Amino acid sequence: MKSILSIFIIALSFASFANEDSLFIRKIYDEALEKGQAHENLRSLCKDIGARITGSAEAKMAVQWGKDLLESYEFDKVYLQEIQVPHWERGTKEAGWMINEDGEVFKFHMIALGGSVGTDGLIEGDVLAVESIEELEALGEEKVKGKIVFFNRPFDQKQIRTFAAYGGCIAQRHEGTNAASKLKAAGVIIRSLGSSTDDHPHTGSMTYEAGVDSVAGAAISTRDSDLLNTWLEKGKVRVKMEMDCRHYPEETSHNVIAEMKGSKDDNIITFGGHLDSWDVGEGAHDDGAGIVHSIEALRILKELGYKPKHTLRCVLFMNEENGNFGGKNYAKLSSEAKEKHICAIETDRGGFLPIGFDVTGSEDQVAMVRQFAPLLKAFQLYKFDPGYSGVDVRPMLEYYPEMIQLGMSISSQRYFDFHHAESDVFENVNKRELHLGAAAMATMIYLLDKNL
Amino acid sequence: MKSILSIFIIALSFASFANEDSLFIRKIYDEALEKGQAHENLRSLCKDIGARITGSAEAKMAVQWGKDLLESYEFDKVYLQEIQVPHWERGTKEAGWMINEDGEVFKFHMIALGGSVGTDGLIEGDVLAVESIEELEALGEEKVKGKIVFFNRPFDQKQIRTFAAYGGCIAQRHEGTNAASKLKAAGVIIRSLGSSTDDHPHTGSMTYEAGVDSVAGAAISTRDSDLLNTWLEKGKVRVKMEMDCRHYPEETSHNVIAEMKGSKDDNIITFGGHLDSWDVGEGAHDDGAGIVHSIEALRILKELGYKPKHTLRCVLFMNEENGNFGGKNYAKLSSEAKEKHICAIETDRGGFLPIGFDVTGSEDQVAMVRQFAPLLKAFQLYKFDPGYSGVDVRPMLEYYPEMIQLGMSISSQRYFDFHHAESDVFENVNKRELHLGAAAMATMIYLLDKNL
Repeated sequence: MKSILSIFIIALSFASFANEDSLFIRKIYDEALEKGQAHENLRSLCKDIGARITGSAEAKMAVQWGKDLLESYEFDKVYLQEIQVPHWERGTKEAGWMINEDGEVFKFHMIALGGSVGTDGLIEGDVLAVESIEELEALGEEKVKGKIVFFNRPFDQKQIRTFAAYGGCIAQRHEGTNAASKLKAAGVIIRSLGSSTDDHPHTGSMTYEAGVDSVAGAAISTRDSDLLNTWLEKGKVRVKMEMDCRHYPEETSHNVIAEMKGSKDDNIITFGGHLDSWDVGEGAHDDGAGIVHSIEALRILKELGYKPKHTLRCVLFMNEENGNFGGKNYAKLSSEAKEKHICAIETDRGGFLPIGFDVTGSEDQVAMVRQFAPLLKAFQLYKFDPGYSGVDVRPMLEYYPEMIQLGMSISSQRYFDFHHAESDVFENVNKRELHLGAAAMATMIYLLDKNL
Repeated sequence: MKSILSIFIIALSFASFANEDSLFIRKIYDEALEKGQAHENLRSLCKDIGARITGSAEAKMAVQWGKDLLESYEFDKVYLQEIQVPHWERGTKEAGWMINEDGEVFKFHMIALGGSVGTDGLIEGDVLAVESIEELEALGEEKVKGKIVFFNRPFDQKQIRTFAAYGGCIAQRHEGTNAASKLKAAGVIIRSLGSSTDDHPHTGSMTYEAGVDSVAGAAISTRDSDLLNTWLEKGKVRVKMEMDCRHYPEETSHNVIAEMKGSKDDNIITFGGHLDSWDVGEGAHDDGAGIVHSIEALRILKELGYKPKHTLRCVLFMNEENGNFGGKNYAKLSSEAKEKHICAIETDRGGFLPIGFDVTGSEDQVAMVRQFAPLLKAFQLYKFDPGYSGVDVRPMLEYYPEMIQLGMSISSQRYFDFHHAESDVFENVNKRELHLGAAAMATMIYLLDKNL
């Protein structure tokens, strides 16, 4: 009953403000589409800084870049939040070959998985192809020992949501090498978690259990995986590979934060993306787009003279890719400081066409967001479903279980062509789509600030 | 009353079949996403044939390409429909320069408008910049005579629907040169109707009134238009230009048609796109995508063993770009043959993400299509609004005013980056987005065949 009543009250109050809201949202879109700065900011982040994994010089430069940019917009407050982050480096050697029984040699398009150990010189072994960790474990140590395990589970093209296809094969990247290590494999290669057939291998995070005698893991391109399959149909294939990636001691880094102070209370609405990226390409879609979406959203609201009820806090999270220490620490420090967090919105699905928002929350909270749908249809935002918010903001739910969280839903059809690969560069981001994303973020922040 | 009753009956029958429909639509998407041939067919059309304006050798090759491909799928009937089409050629000379008062010279990225006369040698004149035909006409012959008129109306970035922005400045391309000719201008250049700031000039159709002493019209790139504006702010700018494009006598060409025969009656559902393109780039988005969408939709329905109630007719229309004689003749010949046309669906908005369908029809017809929305949400199709069908199928309404027409609604954010420009090539079409478009077409054809 409470639920129905509260929806009724929201509906009433919403209807009376719909016209005012509609006009204000139109102004947000005008500013974003006609005078938007997100595209130029992304160019700067991608080209002036580049790929920015934690521990790298680029990550340090990116923190300064973010702070300088936020300060240039003269928000109420800009500051750094210190965190400790992992430091892993790819090194300079990274190569792999396959050799068939006729002696034919083919050099892979190969990339070490993030967090892998190196090979300590050239390693080699016969290829053992499997489609899952379960299949590998069923084979047992006798059949796995000394082999180069090839995790060959393909990206399921039938999924409409490509994140579901990604989820369907992420285990081979994240846990496959650990599983093969335990069975004394010589090394691991995986079919890249990519949606297109091309030559770009895709990296990404992986972990080892403590105490496991770790072997090296790398991804090869989808096209090379197809070729390897063809070779395996004809006979035995041997793989040689070398990587000198390694872990270094933890480093200090920072979340970068900007605020517009609330006029009514000390409740906080957090929104952001992650400033770090993998160490290849330029981290343009993942998640440079989310960074410039978030900065632009706050810039637009300030530019339009909006006076928020609650404090609007833009957070450029550090270290989402390999540890999420930015997100975890932000949540913990928020709680320790007894801050009042009511809402968090993440944008970490690329700079493509925004289509709506996924909501992590109660039925009432989902219903509240769905009230905005008629207003947002004119801006081609249609999808308001229960769903995942984002890796960076998710840890806050442990401390603030009542808060509402949202993830901006962005058309994901092209995302996994570029994700964690050399091709994730500025040139593959469309200006209008990026600016529509910034406008959608500003719009949702505005609506939630007014309605929470 | 009839209206409400018919919606009620549709709703009832629809609900009982929703589950069967849902399963069948899932099969359509599985086939398109996992075994789809649209992308490979588009590669062939773009790379083996290329740009294909009517009158060109490529247009003739494209007719044969379409017929061969449709025959390879063994549909019930494949045939050509003869039509007469215009023949205009760009020629080999096409260049323009601007020169400022300091003697600085800049060579434009310039392209003749489709249908323009040539210049008969180098022409020149001082630049007169205007934003509209009305502004030009208000100046009168005295101020226009001998000038190179620069139509400088920009693409309105604030529009969410880029087709609205395109519509807002299309007059300068389509009628601007004629208006300037009447006022005795020396020639015309226009700011390209493109959404991005780049070096690609965009061509497109234009016309002269009979008896007007025609001058030449060309488009320059958006970036060059910005530069010309900068120069004009400082002083007088002179333009020199030469083009030897010209008209030739009409030629014979063909619409290419394939059918699956209806099992229940001789009603016809027409769907298609246009086979011709402008003579630059590869006509990949405009409208190679629509061609392969349509062919693939029929292939999928046949592959899945679907037995249509009505005849499903896939039409590859010829000559949409400069005359629409394919569409006009198809409508006329259909009427003369006393065919029973109940529905037409066009796809001519590129190979980007499909988001729904626009409906040209009565309130009842729009309501019928909206009944499908709950079923199509799972496939991320959200937009079912009254709207435009397409240039090729539109003429049928003159003969069949009761029919329902639909245009596949495709995210248009990137369309006008490529439209009618050198950059409209196969590489700029994403495979998954293209295959989702084919699946959406097959789905809508299936639902309409069942529900009409």
